[in-house]
Formats: sequence, structure tokens, C-alpha cells
Amino acid sequence: MPNQGFLKVEHIGIAVKSIKASNELFSKLFGKEAYKEEKVESEGVVTSFFQLGETKIELLEASREDSPIAKFIEKRGEGIHHIAYEVEDIISEMQRLKNEGFILLNEVPKQGADNKLVCFLHPKTTNGVLVEICQENRV
Amino acid sequence: MPNQGFLKVEHIGIAVKSIKASNELFSKLFGKEAYKEEKVESEGVVTSFFQLGETKIELLEASREDSPIAKFIEKRGEGIHHIAYEVEDIISEMQRLKNEGFILLNEVPKQGADNKLVCFLHPKTTNGVLVEICQENRV
Repeated sequence: MPNQGFLKVEHIGIAVKSIKASNELFSKLFGKEAYKEEKVESEGVVTSFFQLGETKIELLEASREDSPIAKFIEKRGEGIHHIAYEVEDIISEMQRLKNEGFILLNEVPKQGADNKLVCFLHPKTTNGVLVEICQENRV
Repeated sequence: MPNQGFLKVEHIGIAVKSIKASNELFSKLFGKEAYKEEKVESEGVVTSFFQLGETKIELLEASREDSPIAKFIEKRGEGIHHIAYEVEDIISEMQRLKNEGFILLNEVPKQGADNKLVCFLHPKTTNGVLVEICQENRV
């Protein structure tokens, strides 16, 4: 049996207008530099990552107009977009959460940034917080 | 010289309407129970804490009408209220951040929940994210 439940905060996603400007800002804030940048074509985002302890801060800039990040910023402005929690077995967690009444935004895990398999939960079932669960893609 | 910069995500604060209802919801989500509740009279909040790895999730319910959490929920609804980062020396970090151009919301550290000394930064200087820095109160 895999470990059930959420293990740790894997990353916090923050929507920004300009990844260049925000990399500079967050470097000053955190007192350290981003350690990588990555484009996720399928999600329409450019991302950068900072490591703080066991958690990453992921900055997200829209790479095209119909990106979910462009829509988020248009509606709510820059700010925290989602919290991602690490799980041991994403398939069994998706099943557990579905049984508990949470609404999954994808019915099969999909490929996210940083070599992760991910699933999002609808914020209306999670107190207004967009929740991602993720598992390292071991393939 | 103390360590400079942010060490880890100490906790994520989530504003909720009912701590009772949300404790139940987040227990189901995380697959574990809150480990404590605490009232912080000075901030007008009742809090509960979940531990996920090295990070806590802090639920915040307003305990009176003029509480900052009541105002936040009225304006934006339930959701992520702030991210708190642990620092080694809060006084020297406050000075460092001020020098970098960030706006501190309190000029001296104040007592927060969970036996912490805390300082908040104005979201307009931090990409729309309310940032807290905190240090264990060793006194």
C-alpha cells in the first residue's frame, strides 16, 4: 500500500505579468536566484523556479493570449495561482479525492512542468484554492 | 553572521468563513487532521494548523467584524491569504528587505500565532502576494 494523503508542499505557483521583472523582484525578496526556467507549451506558460527548503516557488508567465495564466491575471491580477502538494501515488490519490467528493479537473494525470504527473482540483470544492497534486514521473 | 534570505515556507495562510467546516474539508483533502487550534486575539482570528512535511497550512477565521480576515473574505472570498517564510534573524531580514525597496507593514516584529515573531510586507511591492517573514520567538 502506498502512503495515502498529501506529503508536502511541492510548490506554490504565482502568476506574473513578466517573468523577467519578477525573477529580479523575487531574487531580491528571497535573497537567492531562480535555478531554472522552463517553457510548458501545452499549458501556454513560461515558468521559473526558486528552491526554499523542500518547497519550490514557481513563477508563471502566459506565453499566449488564451493561456489560463493570461485569463487569471486579467480577472484577479498578479498573485498566487495554485498550491501543489506531493503525493506518493497520484492514481490512488485521485481516486481517494473523487470518493471524498472533490471535483478533478482532469480524469487522467497529465504532464506538468518539472517532470511531474499532475492533477488539478476545482477550487469550488477546496475553499477557493486551486489545488494541484503531483507525483514525480518515474518513467 | 546569521543566514541571510528566506529559508523555507513556514506556513500558508488560508482565509475561511468557518474553521469548523474547513477543518473537516481540509482533513478530507490532506488525508490527515489539524493538530491544533489557536485564537490570536490581537489579530482577530481563530486559526487551525495542519502539518505537511516541513510546512504548515494555517486556516484563518475572523473572530470579529473588523478583523483583516473578515475584510479579505468580503473583498475576495475565501482563499489563500498569505505565505510565511522562515528567516533566521528577523531584524536583519527586515533591514535587508527595506534596503531592497520592499514596504514593511510593521516597523518592529510583532507577536504572531504559533509563538512566532512576524513582519508583513505590502503586496504592492511583492507581485500581489501578501508575504510574512517569521522567526521562532526564542524568549
